[in-house]
Amino acid sequence: MTQTVFILNGPNLNLLGEREPHIYGYDTLATIEQRCIARGQELGFAIDFRQSNLEGEIINSVHEARKKAVAIIINPAAYSFTSIAILDALKAFDGVKLEVHLSNIHRREALYHHSLVSKTADAVIAGLGADGYILALDALRRRLDAAK
Amino acid sequence: MTQTVFILNGPNLNLLGEREPHIYGYDTLATIEQRCIARGQELGFAIDFRQSNLEGEIINSVHEARKKAVAIIINPAAYSFTSIAILDALKAFDGVKLEVHLSNIHRREALYHHSLVSKTADAVIAGLGADGYILALDALRRRLDAAK
Amino acid sequence: MTQTVFILNGPNLNLLGEREPHIYGYDTLATIEQRCIARGQELGFAIDFRQSNLEGEIINSVHEARKKAVAIIINPAAYSFTSIAILDALKAFDGVKLEVHLSNIHRREALYHHSLVSKTADAVIAGLGADGYILALDALRRRLDAAK
Amino acid sequence: MTQTVFILNGPNLNLLGEREPHIYGYDTLATIEQRCIARGQELGFAIDFRQSNLEGEIINSVHEARKKAVAIIINPAAYSFTSIAILDALKAFDGVKLEVHLSNIHRREALYHHSLVSKTADAVIAGLGADGYILALDALRRRLDAAK
Amino acid sequence: MTQTVFILNGPNLNLLGEREPHIYGYDTLATIEQRCIARGQELGFAIDFRQSNLEGEIINSVHEARKKAVAIIINPAAYSFTSIAILDALKAFDGVKLEVHLSNIHRREALYHHSLVSKTADAVIAGLGADGYILALDALRRRLDAAK
Amino acid sequence: MTQTVFILNGPNLNLLGEREPHIYGYDTLATIEQRCIARGQELGFAIDFRQSNLEGEIINSVHEARKKAVAIIINPAAYSFTSIAILDALKAFDGVKLEVHLSNIHRREALYHHSLVSKTADAVIAGLGADGYILALDALRRRLDAAK
Amino acid sequence: MTQTVFILNGPNLNLLGEREPHIYGYDTLATIEQRCIARGQELGFAIDFRQSNLEGEIINSVHEARKKAVAIIINPAAYSFTSIAILDALKAFDGVKLEVHLSNIHRREALYHHSLVSKTADAVIAGLGADGYILALDALRRRLDAAK
Amino acid sequence: MTQTVFILNGPNLNLLGEREPHIYGYDTLATIEQRCIARGQELGFAIDFRQSNLEGEIINSVHEARKKAVAIIINPAAYSFTSIAILDALKAFDGVKLEVHLSNIHRREALYHHSLVSKTADAVIAGLGADGYILALDALRRRLDAAK
Amino acid sequence: MTQTVFILNGPNLNLLGEREPHIYGYDTLATIEQRCIARGQELGFAIDFRQSNLEGEIINSVHEARKKAVAIIINPAAYSFTSIAILDALKAFDGVKLEVHLSNIHRREALYHHSLVSKTADAVIAGLGADGYILALDALRRRLDAAK
Amino acid sequence: MTQTVFILNGPNLNLLGEREPHIYGYDTLATIEQRCIARGQELGFAIDFRQSNLEGEIINSVHEARKKAVAIIINPAAYSFTSIAILDALKAFDGVKLEVHLSNIHRREALYHHSLVSKTADAVIAGLGADGYILALDALRRRLDAAK
Amino acid sequence: MTQTVFILNGPNLNLLGEREPHIYGYDTLATIEQRCIARGQELGFAIDFRQSNLEGEIINSVHEARKKAVAIIINPAAYSFTSIAILDALKAFDGVKLEVHLSNIHRREALYHHSLVSKTADAVIAGLGADGYILALDALRRRLDAAK
Amino acid sequence: MTQTVFILNGPNLNLLGEREPHIYGYDTLATIEQRCIARGQELGFAIDFRQSNLEGEIINSVHEARKKAVAIIINPAAYSFTSIAILDALKAFDGVKLEVHLSNIHRREALYHHSLVSKTADAVIAGLGADGYILALDALRRRLDAAK
Repeated sequence: MTQTVFILNGPNLNLLGEREPHIYGYDTLATIEQRCIARGQELGFAIDFRQSNLEGEIINSVHEARKKAVAIIINPAAYSFTSIAILDALKAFDGVKLEVHLSNIHRREALYHHSLVSKTADAVIAGLGADGYILALDALRRRLDAAK
Repeated sequence: MTQTVFILNGPNLNLLGEREPHIYGYDTLATIEQRCIARGQELGFAIDFRQSNLEGEIINSVHEARKKAVAIIINPAAYSFTSIAILDALKAFDGVKLEVHLSNIHRREALYHHSLVSKTADAVIAGLGADGYILALDALRRRLDAAK
Repeated sequence: MTQTVFILNGPNLNLLGEREPHIYGYDTLATIEQRCIARGQELGFAIDFRQSNLEGEIINSVHEARKKAVAIIINPAAYSFTSIAILDALKAFDGVKLEVHLSNIHRREALYHHSLVSKTADAVIAGLGADGYILALDALRRRLDAAK
Repeated sequence: MTQTVFILNGPNLNLLGEREPHIYGYDTLATIEQRCIARGQELGFAIDFRQSNLEGEIINSVHEARKKAVAIIINPAAYSFTSIAILDALKAFDGVKLEVHLSNIHRREALYHHSLVSKTADAVIAGLGADGYILALDALRRRLDAAK
Repeated sequence: MTQTVFILNGPNLNLLGEREPHIYGYDTLATIEQRCIARGQELGFAIDFRQSNLEGEIINSVHEARKKAVAIIINPAAYSFTSIAILDALKAFDGVKLEVHLSNIHRREALYHHSLVSKTADAVIAGLGADGYILALDALRRRLDAAK
Repeated sequence: MTQTVFILNGPNLNLLGEREPHIYGYDTLATIEQRCIARGQELGFAIDFRQSNLEGEIINSVHEARKKAVAIIINPAAYSFTSIAILDALKAFDGVKLEVHLSNIHRREALYHHSLVSKTADAVIAGLGADGYILALDALRRRLDAAK
Repeated sequence: MTQTVFILNGPNLNLLGEREPHIYGYDTLATIEQRCIARGQELGFAIDFRQSNLEGEIINSVHEARKKAVAIIINPAAYSFTSIAILDALKAFDGVKLEVHLSNIHRREALYHHSLVSKTADAVIAGLGADGYILALDALRRRLDAAK
Repeated sequence: MTQTVFILNGPNLNLLGEREPHIYGYDTLATIEQRCIARGQELGFAIDFRQSNLEGEIINSVHEARKKAVAIIINPAAYSFTSIAILDALKAFDGVKLEVHLSNIHRREALYHHSLVSKTADAVIAGLGADGYILALDALRRRLDAAK
Repeated sequence: MTQTVFILNGPNLNLLGEREPHIYGYDTLATIEQRCIARGQELGFAIDFRQSNLEGEIINSVHEARKKAVAIIINPAAYSFTSIAILDALKAFDGVKLEVHLSNIHRREALYHHSLVSKTADAVIAGLGADGYILALDALRRRLDAAK
Repeated sequence: MTQTVFILNGPNLNLLGEREPHIYGYDTLATIEQRCIARGQELGFAIDFRQSNLEGEIINSVHEARKKAVAIIINPAAYSFTSIAILDALKAFDGVKLEVHLSNIHRREALYHHSLVSKTADAVIAGLGADGYILALDALRRRLDAAK
Repeated sequence: MTQTVFILNGPNLNLLGEREPHIYGYDTLATIEQRCIARGQELGFAIDFRQSNLEGEIINSVHEARKKAVAIIINPAAYSFTSIAILDALKAFDGVKLEVHLSNIHRREALYHHSLVSKTADAVIAGLGADGYILALDALRRRLDAAK
Repeated sequence: MTQTVFILNGPNLNLLGEREPHIYGYDTLATIEQRCIARGQELGFAIDFRQSNLEGEIINSVHEARKKAVAIIINPAAYSFTSIAILDALKAFDGVKLEVHLSNIHRREALYHHSLVSKTADAVIAGLGADGYILALDALRRRLDAAK
């Protein structure tokens, strides 16, 4: 049976592909969504892919996932570093939680080093660009199969 | 004459009763609202009880209270620790401001130790679970009566 | 059956009512003691109300409470911020522990922000003046009844 | 040809003129908007003047400005000090970015000293009250003319 | 009647126009002085424009301004970050104090982030190059007129 | 043509499968090596898999990789947090550098939060157990193909 | 009329003259008391000279001084650096408060640099040995005469 | 000839055996005293064994030891971490000073990591429970014999 | 024989009596100089009293004192907190060094708490206003007589 | 039956007896080994005594002890303060772990205050010179006997 | 053709040879100047050797060097640690910049550890006494020759 | 008679000339060794030149130097910043100790600012590339001659 996975994207990720492509790559968020849906189909996942610039909307999505999804893949972008509220929301989610960052945040300025979300995520993938989302789906499949 | 009190609840408190009940208790937010309204009636308060996951909506509620309420009882949850904007909004509220936390935040991890809201609150009650709201209403009654 | 509650007051609280009344209020410690005893009677508590300027005497009282009291309500005053010894004594007390501060310590200078005692207290009430003691008794009653 | 300038105002600025007028002055935000529009006309700027208490809405406005405006003048208020998300949004805006604060934030408490937005703003004007907006428009005119 | 304004420039500013023009612009200090004098005439200010590499000479100038000037516009350059003595001198000046920095110091290395002088300045303008001086004069005119 | 990939493992990883299996899983390092070799064959990689408890031997391996390998996948274990020498060695390696941690180091004690190696790694995968190595190989394949 | 001055000495000062005389001098506390009494007579002061190793007893003495003394001269010794309780007691004393240290505490190890008592003392004299007490009495005389 | 050794025990140690026996063991302080006296007899030491919850009383005991004892074995408990006054008293003791902690304080919370007393103690034994006292006596015997 | 004493005054002290007299008193520096000279005559000291706003001139005066003076009394004002160069100069002076501050610097903002000069001064007198200079001379007389 | 105990010594301890004997004593490491073996025989322990200057070799020895020894007595010397790798190795050892330092490290410079190894050691003995090893063996005997 | 080298010496270096000769050596600054001139002649350098106790004069010399010298050798003494203004002046000098310290500043107190000037110097020589100047000239010769 | 000098090189220095030559220069370590040997011959030194990537091997070399060498010239590379063990080994070496860094470490990232080895080195030369070794030999010659 198909399992639902929420893929949540934080602030400014709607600009992907336009903003500093030499850093973030030429993939737009729409392209990433399509790649995730395609890969999801191969792996037996229905993908619910969202983006919001509002911290509270992301929290609402995490709450919604409690009823609907087996896992959350989240790229919290700037809210990674400032949002205890998203951290708290994720703590109340019992499924698998995978955190993805397009760039290797540890190589950026100090402001971007400490993701609060990492304190609750099961795993973190950083620096692999859009591929990070696909690898997260692959890892999720393995992890769910192993837990059977 | 009945006085209006705003009771504002921050992010993730809508999950109360479901999330980690061994920590936060089995009361849902709806139950707490009912208890507050009942106690309010005994004390001569009309209770306007709200919850939001959006920082900005909480700010809007604080602004609205400036015209309508004699006091704000606020449980800012995760925003306690990160929101200077809510702090600023509360500074512009002239009525009584009471801060409530369900758990004793000082016993949690360091991330949860320093409430910015405490810098403007008249008083803080932490660690008494849902009773904290009721005691805040009692304290408010005494304080308003004493100020007459 | 009447239950005994120790109410312990730390250094300088014997000056209450004389010292900076615009901050601490005009209640003397004797008045607060009387209000606590009266409220205690209504709630079924025998109150043992003490004050000491000596850190070691407060520790002795906490030890004594281990045999005699169901709960300690403590306003450790200045020792809140420096006494690991009182913290350790309280850790060895199995009953309910409620911490009371007359003023909202979080609005004072940094020196007064971090109560060590809060690390073991079940709950903290700060900023409600002498009412804080009464509310602590009310909360205690509810908590003991709920635990039955 | 008229150039569009976005003037973005952060949380609580809707209270201007009501809140602590001895500090922030008696100008309301509506008055400031009128002064900006009038000055804009003299300088050849169409002014799009907005205020929001929601961090995410401000981010949306910054994104919108990418297509429509030659410059952003922003008074991020409390979000100056906490929002990496607004910082990131502004980094993706290629036009001129001027940061305005009504008061000299460096004279306030430590909490208000470090504007994250200043890390990407071209210039910062603080402490000149509502005049700061007008001077920002003047400076913008000179800067755009000099860059021709 | 013409009012005198002291414009004080700190260490290394005598090199302006020669030193890293891509950062500080091609204006020399002499050019800035001429622009200030011209603008001053339009606004009714006599400009006393000085530069010194010696901390003590700047202090002497601030003292001298106590008798002669209605305002000080100061670009303390490197002394912004290290001189409590200049800060103290400015505290003893009762007129308007405006601080100007050619570059946006908040975007530079940490060493240049915290101007001590900002603790006493009425306003700060940073990042507008030589225009900053002119805008400071404009702002001063408005402020003095408003105070009448 | 087959490309060589060095997979380097730091101190104590030889105990894998024996040490705290509830945390690190039941895979031994030998099993992981076999999985990596198998996956490498599918992807066109010859795997040179090593483990050492000596910081200097790991540095020697990194130097050797300069001549022989297109990429290094490294799990530096405890040396992640203390070895500037390994960081320097990796900086001198021009191929792709992927860092793998079995557990999500950000959820452990503060001692394990800051990997120095992350400052030079292209990407970091943490918290996926032995799967992390396989995903690193997958990601490497994509990255090398994309760079063609 | 003779005015009473309390001279309070903190922990270990009873060892004076025996303990490290090359540092603290050969004067015993008894000698210092005699010198203070003698000088007090010349200046019109009755001296109440005390020493205690117990923090609480010193607090008690400060409270007692509230009724009896025009001034407190205090050498809090080790409690200077740790006792918020003595600081609070002194804050409640309205007379003149002069702090004396035998050695220049700023030249000792960091542990001895920050006297909490200095936050409320009117003046501090450090490094003049037993003479510091006499000079404090002299200064007190001048200050009381000037205040007439 | 028999030599006297003071064994001083700090706050809350009177609760030993009752308080958290899984951590501190089932030995009471009386048992430890007996074991010390017995061992002392074998080694030629008269043991003066004391406990106090008052910082000042411990200081008094240290002073008394100056005349009577060749060595102090001290378990300062919570005062280890806060009492500069006890540190100062011990500095004035010329005999051997051995510090004992029942538990390994370095494995506890940060609050308990830095013993001030260790700055003057000759040696520290932590984590060996009541055996630590006996080993301290053994070590003392060897040290005194070696010094002959 | 008359001994020479240098009394050195740092930046902004030339404004004394004019600047914030409610804090610093109504004495001008000239008055203080006269009082010092008068007291010096009684005690057998020739006073060389100087003020400078230039750090380097104060250093020159300290060097000059090496040949001419038995003691330096210095009020380094703002340079107390920033000048390692004056500290170094004073370290090379072998006579008595007394540091005077008009106000109790420990009660001011943190910026004014740590005098570098105190690291080499023999004694520090703070908070006694102009009397501090006179007491420093008295203390100097005693100290020199005692050293005979 | 004889039980094996590993006694591991870290870097530079091979110089013992030659290096600063006034601090570390005149015992060489060979002497200490002999004393340990002798005492071991009395207590029923076979001693495997080793020294290495290489961090990785010490880790190897700890791993080896997992199969062969009931306890490790370790003097990690300089690696105490820097080696998370040795800490991790010891965490994977289930037997008794006793840490010995020849000198009282808490009295040395700050660099030597925080032993990482103490975070996993059962007990720590510091400052008793070579006797520390013997006392560790005695304590081990008691502890193993008590656990029977 | 002879090239000019400025050798600049900071505060208190005029005392060299007199001040603490056991630390700084018996060479006076005049001797060092002579040695530098002699060595300069051998190497083809005209030496302009200066000393000043005034920060601003050193800045003026650095500015002057911009027109006249191929290199600056600077011993900024105490200003190394406090002067951003000298750092800024040196940043505007395009020739070679060599920093010399007589003693190894890293072995002194923390106050002397962080030279700001090192942030712009090409090289630093510390701890070789007066020889450091000669070696700096030697190094300069090699560097200029290599750059041809 | 020829004196032996050990020249010890730390991790990654074997890559010299290959790794980032624009930073570290085109000299290989072999070339530097030859230059050192040649210069050594002119100065009467036999050079024992070594490189190791293993911290423990460098310690072994330092120990060996105790018997064989009059001086150690050491470029500890990355171990400068992390190895207390090498620092301890060097402390036990009584000859001259000179520390050399190819680049000016103070201009690099914060990670490379604080050499532990500098705490025991007699002198430090940084930023002169391979010339630094030659200058160290020159300085050594002078120092040994001066000490005769």
